[in-house]
Amino acid sequence: VKMAKLLNFDEKEYSNSKEVIIQARPIAEKVAEEIHNQGYSNIFFSSVGGSLAPMISLAEMSKELSNISVHLEQAAELVTKGNKNISKDSVIITMSKSGDTKETVDLINWAHAQNVRIVGITKNEDSPVGKLSTWFIPMRHENGVEYEYMMLFWLYFKLLNLHGDFKDYEEFAEQLEKLPDNLLKAKQKFEPRANEIAKKYHDVPYQLWVGGSEMWGEVYLFSMCILEEMQWQRTKSVTSAEFFHGTLELLDETVPLFLIKGEGKGRKLDERVENFAKNVTDNLVVIDSKDFILENIDDKFRWIMAPCIISTILVDRLAEHFEKYTGHDLDIRRYYRKVEY
Amino acid sequence: VKMAKLLNFDEKEYSNSKEVIIQARPIAEKVAEEIHNQGYSNIFFSSVGGSLAPMISLAEMSKELSNISVHLEQAAELVTKGNKNISKDSVIITMSKSGDTKETVDLINWAHAQNVRIVGITKNEDSPVGKLSTWFIPMRHENGVEYEYMMLFWLYFKLLNLHGDFKDYEEFAEQLEKLPDNLLKAKQKFEPRANEIAKKYHDVPYQLWVGGSEMWGEVYLFSMCILEEMQWQRTKSVTSAEFFHGTLELLDETVPLFLIKGEGKGRKLDERVENFAKNVTDNLVVIDSKDFILENIDDKFRWIMAPCIISTILVDRLAEHFEKYTGHDLDIRRYYRKVEY
Repeated sequence: VKMAKLLNFDEKEYSNSKEVIIQARPIAEKVAEEIHNQGYSNIFFSSVGGSLAPMISLAEMSKELSNISVHLEQAAELVTKGNKNISKDSVIITMSKSGDTKETVDLINWAHAQNVRIVGITKNEDSPVGKLSTWFIPMRHENGVEYEYMMLFWLYFKLLNLHGDFKDYEEFAEQLEKLPDNLLKAKQKFEPRANEIAKKYHDVPYQLWVGGSEMWGEVYLFSMCILEEMQWQRTKSVTSAEFFHGTLELLDETVPLFLIKGEGKGRKLDERVENFAKNVTDNLVVIDSKDFILENIDDKFRWIMAPCIISTILVDRLAEHFEKYTGHDLDIRRYYRKVEY
Repeated sequence: VKMAKLLNFDEKEYSNSKEVIIQARPIAEKVAEEIHNQGYSNIFFSSVGGSLAPMISLAEMSKELSNISVHLEQAAELVTKGNKNISKDSVIITMSKSGDTKETVDLINWAHAQNVRIVGITKNEDSPVGKLSTWFIPMRHENGVEYEYMMLFWLYFKLLNLHGDFKDYEEFAEQLEKLPDNLLKAKQKFEPRANEIAKKYHDVPYQLWVGGSEMWGEVYLFSMCILEEMQWQRTKSVTSAEFFHGTLELLDETVPLFLIKGEGKGRKLDERVENFAKNVTDNLVVIDSKDFILENIDDKFRWIMAPCIISTILVDRLAEHFEKYTGHDLDIRRYYRKVEY
């Protein structure tokens, strides 16, 4: 199959990232084994912004997979307020691409002061997150939230498996290595649609983004960390379940509603939004992970990998097309890491 | 002190509601005692929309007060997805003013099917929530989210106290009875400001609402369940901590940012937003519970009661003034309970 040309896409980098992410699997699994062997009372996923998003999704998945006590905490809130469920038996898992995000560094120092173990996932071994974590897991890939999910899956689902949950882990972990090739095909398939969507909606005054359950991290991430932060577009994100308790009243025939559909149990809540919205707005955009083939991956694992599909087509593809039409460089910031606060 | 006339306010109803809410205290405390005596492994706060909001705040407070395992779940998500931490040893606490909210009724039926105990707080004893709950706590007051907080405080903080946490409970519970009179004075004080704010901002295209920790429920509630649902105003709500990971880039000198400041440990995160925003926008509106006196209430309890102050001045006062200027009746809905979905 001839590859369509993807906008602003470095295929060599992507393919290199695939190799190095797969090399990180045994490192992540070894950390899981050490945590399991040392024992733990609960797990705190804690991070900020774009690094918090995949953790939101993992915490949602965990509810269906395990009775391990999982807490999800924005890092600055955890450090500022503390938490009575944190003890020396807890394990914190954090992530920061740069490894020097202020709140994440504060979290690690705070964890040490409380004698709490912390896993740090970051690109730079020499960064504070790399140097100060109890366990360091390297993110050697260049870009791609989907790779961050893969790292977290190998770490956390291995831990679940050792706990006696998620019996299919070995099969899942193997098949996860097949995901990047599938995601490249998903990018290809989505490319013309990314262009159409961005062309039509790049200059609307306001966009609704809706989705839920294990897809919520992606809805949250794309609306806040991409459209708001990188494109200065006004958005409102709300879960498929809560949409019906307020936000629905904003919808009329003109308002664009982007619905992210997942493949887990929460899909029926997404479908309820779809059935309602299609009768109200002429601008319903449904983005459904089910439209994309995952070769060599069992159907039973699709709901877990679905956020990776959505991330790769939105964060990597749709964002680039928005940039093309708005003319607003994705790298421009007014304030973040530019002014003190 | 002569009372200023409050817009669309029925003082007799408010005063009657105060009496009946205080009568509910022993009922809520008795339920806490029964739950404690029967034993429980964890507590699930589960509801939807405006009834979920105070629970969001309580779950945040619980992190600082107790190591009881607390879960917060949107009712439709919990019923749709289940949760591996739910067992016959769990207790669910739910709330619905009408007592017939579809998702809440589904939750109660689901709880029974799993043999899980459930506390139902509602106005109508004859409603499904009133009739089907394991424990029914009557909400006999007419209106006021602040009264819903009070009910939840007497129930949940009594439970904390029996668990060995929150040793000051008796003192707190007594002083809580003094809250409604203080809230009436807060309404009086805020009335002219409610008028000014609504006059200035009732026709803006977009509003940012920011706050966090135990105040997050109020930020969530006012933006979604009042401004969006009842006034069809476009809003974005984001926590004070996460504001800095995307949404901040939307701010310029024209964008209105409403900041809700609390009085707990998270206040410093609110102050960070304030310090940033005051240098950027000419339309920063700070709403601070500290501006309101609470007579006969100890300072140490103020952070817990702060959401009640904010709720009473926003949901009860500011909403009425928005209605006055927009001419959009707070009771009008296009879709909710009007169309099937």
